[in-house]
Amino acid sequence: MTTSVEPTPATMRASVMTGVRTLEIEDRPVPAPGPHQVLVEVAAVGVCGSDVHYYRHGRIGDFVVDAPMILGHELSGRIAAVGDGVDAGRIGQRVAVEPQHPCRRCKQCTAGRYNLCPDMEFYATPPIDGAFCRYVLTDDDMAHPVPDSMSDDAAALLEPLSVAIATMRKAHVVPGTSILIAGAGPIGVICAQAARAFGASRIVVTDLLASRREKALQFGATEVLDPAAVDVTAIEPVDAFVDATGVPVAVVSGIKAVGPAGHVVLVGMGADEYALPVSHIANNEITVTGVFRYTDTWPAAIHLVASGAVDLDGMVTGRYDLEHVGEALDSDTDPESLKSIVVPS
Amino acid sequence: MTTSVEPTPATMRASVMTGVRTLEIEDRPVPAPGPHQVLVEVAAVGVCGSDVHYYRHGRIGDFVVDAPMILGHELSGRIAAVGDGVDAGRIGQRVAVEPQHPCRRCKQCTAGRYNLCPDMEFYATPPIDGAFCRYVLTDDDMAHPVPDSMSDDAAALLEPLSVAIATMRKAHVVPGTSILIAGAGPIGVICAQAARAFGASRIVVTDLLASRREKALQFGATEVLDPAAVDVTAIEPVDAFVDATGVPVAVVSGIKAVGPAGHVVLVGMGADEYALPVSHIANNEITVTGVFRYTDTWPAAIHLVASGAVDLDGMVTGRYDLEHVGEALDSDTDPESLKSIVVPS
Amino acid sequence: MTTSVEPTPATMRASVMTGVRTLEIEDRPVPAPGPHQVLVEVAAVGVCGSDVHYYRHGRIGDFVVDAPMILGHELSGRIAAVGDGVDAGRIGQRVAVEPQHPCRRCKQCTAGRYNLCPDMEFYATPPIDGAFCRYVLTDDDMAHPVPDSMSDDAAALLEPLSVAIATMRKAHVVPGTSILIAGAGPIGVICAQAARAFGASRIVVTDLLASRREKALQFGATEVLDPAAVDVTAIEPVDAFVDATGVPVAVVSGIKAVGPAGHVVLVGMGADEYALPVSHIANNEITVTGVFRYTDTWPAAIHLVASGAVDLDGMVTGRYDLEHVGEALDSDTDPESLKSIVVPS
Amino acid sequence: MTTSVEPTPATMRASVMTGVRTLEIEDRPVPAPGPHQVLVEVAAVGVCGSDVHYYRHGRIGDFVVDAPMILGHELSGRIAAVGDGVDAGRIGQRVAVEPQHPCRRCKQCTAGRYNLCPDMEFYATPPIDGAFCRYVLTDDDMAHPVPDSMSDDAAALLEPLSVAIATMRKAHVVPGTSILIAGAGPIGVICAQAARAFGASRIVVTDLLASRREKALQFGATEVLDPAAVDVTAIEPVDAFVDATGVPVAVVSGIKAVGPAGHVVLVGMGADEYALPVSHIANNEITVTGVFRYTDTWPAAIHLVASGAVDLDGMVTGRYDLEHVGEALDSDTDPESLKSIVVPS
Repeated sequence: MTTSVEPTPATMRASVMTGVRTLEIEDRPVPAPGPHQVLVEVAAVGVCGSDVHYYRHGRIGDFVVDAPMILGHELSGRIAAVGDGVDAGRIGQRVAVEPQHPCRRCKQCTAGRYNLCPDMEFYATPPIDGAFCRYVLTDDDMAHPVPDSMSDDAAALLEPLSVAIATMRKAHVVPGTSILIAGAGPIGVICAQAARAFGASRIVVTDLLASRREKALQFGATEVLDPAAVDVTAIEPVDAFVDATGVPVAVVSGIKAVGPAGHVVLVGMGADEYALPVSHIANNEITVTGVFRYTDTWPAAIHLVASGAVDLDGMVTGRYDLEHVGEALDSDTDPESLKSIVVPS
Repeated sequence: MTTSVEPTPATMRASVMTGVRTLEIEDRPVPAPGPHQVLVEVAAVGVCGSDVHYYRHGRIGDFVVDAPMILGHELSGRIAAVGDGVDAGRIGQRVAVEPQHPCRRCKQCTAGRYNLCPDMEFYATPPIDGAFCRYVLTDDDMAHPVPDSMSDDAAALLEPLSVAIATMRKAHVVPGTSILIAGAGPIGVICAQAARAFGASRIVVTDLLASRREKALQFGATEVLDPAAVDVTAIEPVDAFVDATGVPVAVVSGIKAVGPAGHVVLVGMGADEYALPVSHIANNEITVTGVFRYTDTWPAAIHLVASGAVDLDGMVTGRYDLEHVGEALDSDTDPESLKSIVVPS
Repeated sequence: MTTSVEPTPATMRASVMTGVRTLEIEDRPVPAPGPHQVLVEVAAVGVCGSDVHYYRHGRIGDFVVDAPMILGHELSGRIAAVGDGVDAGRIGQRVAVEPQHPCRRCKQCTAGRYNLCPDMEFYATPPIDGAFCRYVLTDDDMAHPVPDSMSDDAAALLEPLSVAIATMRKAHVVPGTSILIAGAGPIGVICAQAARAFGASRIVVTDLLASRREKALQFGATEVLDPAAVDVTAIEPVDAFVDATGVPVAVVSGIKAVGPAGHVVLVGMGADEYALPVSHIANNEITVTGVFRYTDTWPAAIHLVASGAVDLDGMVTGRYDLEHVGEALDSDTDPESLKSIVVPS
Repeated sequence: MTTSVEPTPATMRASVMTGVRTLEIEDRPVPAPGPHQVLVEVAAVGVCGSDVHYYRHGRIGDFVVDAPMILGHELSGRIAAVGDGVDAGRIGQRVAVEPQHPCRRCKQCTAGRYNLCPDMEFYATPPIDGAFCRYVLTDDDMAHPVPDSMSDDAAALLEPLSVAIATMRKAHVVPGTSILIAGAGPIGVICAQAARAFGASRIVVTDLLASRREKALQFGATEVLDPAAVDVTAIEPVDAFVDATGVPVAVVSGIKAVGPAGHVVLVGMGADEYALPVSHIANNEITVTGVFRYTDTWPAAIHLVASGAVDLDGMVTGRYDLEHVGEALDSDTDPESLKSIVVPS
């Protein structure tokens, strides 16, 4: 049984990636929510670097787009219909969608690490469709209510903020922590904001581009460095290092800037294998790890934005409709662009 | 003031490394214990790979032996005299010596990570003398009483067992953990024993030498593999990987054998920098770290040996006097040798 | 669809609690496994203190037996049939059953604390039936395969061992920990065994009965005390205290025996509210908590028993068939009784 | 050797507690700093509830003032002289003093829990003198430099903020946590501020006095309750509860307001022993602990105040000179008073 107060259409328009650098507008059936699912009418979708990578290269590592697929996984919207077991009172609720569908039964899921579920179905990861379309399905507990004061854009960008929150947790950032962040793209900037909100006292951000370093200063960095001009390893040792570049030279110098018992978190995606400063890691008992999605971050993210500790609206530099998803995906070639939003309706 | 019940001699014999592959027996003054110090008459000293490395190469990384130095840092003995602030009743007590002298005042020390103290004075690390001699000084709390049932050899080998205990802690080994250990030399074997004592259910040890793999099976491994014959990355994923080789290919394959949210601890010393499988680490949120000395391990080590959970005496394959320290240091060239002991008196 | 290789009967015999101290043998339909469920033919069921309490008092706190209910939640058996989504190859597999059915969707479940799921359906907790019968249903991942070498009795008693494992984890027991356990009944004894297996160096068990103190010594205690004769608070401070009595005076003296930064875990059930030594807790920054069921304990429990570190068979002091469940429930009145088993088939 | 750039006088004036409710101004010798010590010229001293308690009752639990003693342990000042081993460049530096002198050698100290050192010498805890005087000695690493922008008053109040930071850590407060705080006196208010700075999303503060509830709202509470009018246990369950009253009824209702796996921290001092809701604690696996001093909190406290996240100056409601310490100690009888400062010079 599906409950909805207003009729949802039978079909919807979607921007479908049908090949490398190829998008087509298609009519797709609007799916019906199953048990414990909700149908969300999409309001805003952020463009992520992984969308861009699939669009340009047709793959990320072992994940290959070998059939038409809808991109987009940072989204907000409004609940249009609910499936069995879901309170019908939720219809009409504004929500931010956590784009994960874990199995809930495996060892990782029952241990509270559903982000590592081997049977995960994740939006816009082949062969699962994403959100550059009018309606999407999600599990009811993955549709997080947002306050009226939060914009659709900000609600969509709770997804990259969730990456940043998961990163801060793994980097052990607490009040007083000093942190180095390599890269002032969208993830680096949002990590700087999260670091400030988690209480970091010193937030050093590096980027080769002066315009990006300015963005970092605007959004939380206490200090910025041009790694082409300054030896990053010569700064006062930091407690934590977050890489948001995926560039080996940035990772190596960042790790060397970390002091004893510090923490390194690799967020940026790069080559499968590259040289790390193993002696520095071992002799200082530094821990190195990465972030792969997130668990239980939306409530914290909603609070950080609602309280004003993190500004997501200010990061939006472009808005596009479904017909212009290609332009949205290519907007990162403009150095002034920080975050683009697609508005499907 | 120094208290002692029996006269200690004014001088002692010591085996001094005076150059690469050069040892000389010298007469050295017996030091007097200062406040909170004890003088230990050395009973047994284990030979460690780092002693061998200094002996053969004159350096380990940035640590250079550029003046005569006494090697040896795995030791047991008997308290011969005590300094101010130490209970005179301790004289005569059999002890295992934790060879660390931290500053106790820095940020690392006050945080409980005295192993990472930047002002650490550590036995047999230039320019600090070690224990291939008749008497040594140590802080009173670093001289851990051992039960009568424990041999001098076993008491000395509490030091490498401490490395293994620190490793198990960082590898999060608890009852039921599965662990892969690369290398069945002394550290690999003692890690296998520690893993069993910590409750690991599956203990896979790899080594190129069949004789060493047999040792591993004898001392705790539930399974052994020849990495030249078997693809280590193809085993059922493990919760933890410990590298006791320092060999990049072993480290890479070991990390790839670790499953989601697993832990990697690098104990073996190798090159400063080499390629690691970064994508596998990040996509599985594996943590990679190293072990650099230890904190608060002797009490646990004493219990594990006294209760029979760990067998150190069985690992001793050779015993040498002060005149034959060179032979002791070269004993690792015999594939049947596992652990050599120097008996100074 | 349900798959089974041999016919399971349509009905089964069950020992049903129809009132306080009243049991009746009834014919009940054998249930069919739904998706992700298995049907287990019960081989052995341990008698727990909570079964006894329901039998004698008809309730435990807010949980009231107000309709006929089958008791028993410590069980092993053999998979007789499987539901959709379960490998049919599991039919015939010997298993230990984790008697939990959490919702897998709530905040506690997705955080990895499914034991605290507010919608938990737990065997033999009103109104959910337990296992004093021929067949039971369970989720497939809650039916843990056991090795052939493990007896049915031992496999059933993995449940109380799981309580003990959860307790050791919360008590932070690691190699070298000193622990005080109040009470040498079944839970106290199994906690002593678990403490030894987790590496505790000093395991002090208190009980008013000499015969029970002897059992404790036989199963892991390094020391036993009669709390009527000895002041428990005067022992050398311990790192951890586990209460397995629920008796306030035992809890208070036990907490006072704990040293700085120690851990207290309350396993025994007693009054809802009673006086605790708050100043001692606060001034020593001791943590006090309880154990309510368990998560992810069966794999560790299986290893501890299979490796010989824990002996469950030796704890069995009586075996009963379905017609004699009443005698099994009353066996705790015999001070020589430690653990009774019901064999339904 | 002692280094100082300007002459320090040989004697100083001190406000000495010579009996219950009795203070006398005395001339005392100015002490000389020993190795690793600094002499601090006191600028501001906060009045703490423990000072008040000693003044009125002559004791706190087992700590008895049985000889003349100087009260006061929340202090800031300027380094006037340094002992051996301290950089003479520190002379003139403005500092906040962490009033702890641990042994640095015991098990607690080497484990990083120096706050629990059994040989701790703590300012204004018998028989150790405190800071209601012109000069005090402290270990150099306990004199934390503060920025010029921070007032002397705020620098002194980093001590109660440190209690709050230690509390937040033990209460596991992170972005998104919901917390209940009982009591809106100085510690309750400063805990509310710390909770906000640590990212708590919901901060409920209870107090019987309306004027204090208003203070709480002003300093971080998102909600306040009158526990005489509202059933605290009926609010939506919180993740954490901090008691800053020491009143049993407040503690019990606060604990009952905590949800599954939540954390309770007892900061307020009250009776040695009183009834706690043990079943609620155990069935929800809540942890209960206390805070006893702090470790490594000043750097975080300095950042929180310097960044504006915590406002300490706004909490000061009265300032007194050495001749009026009695009035300062009695200022808590005015319900409008929140925090009093003594200025010795």
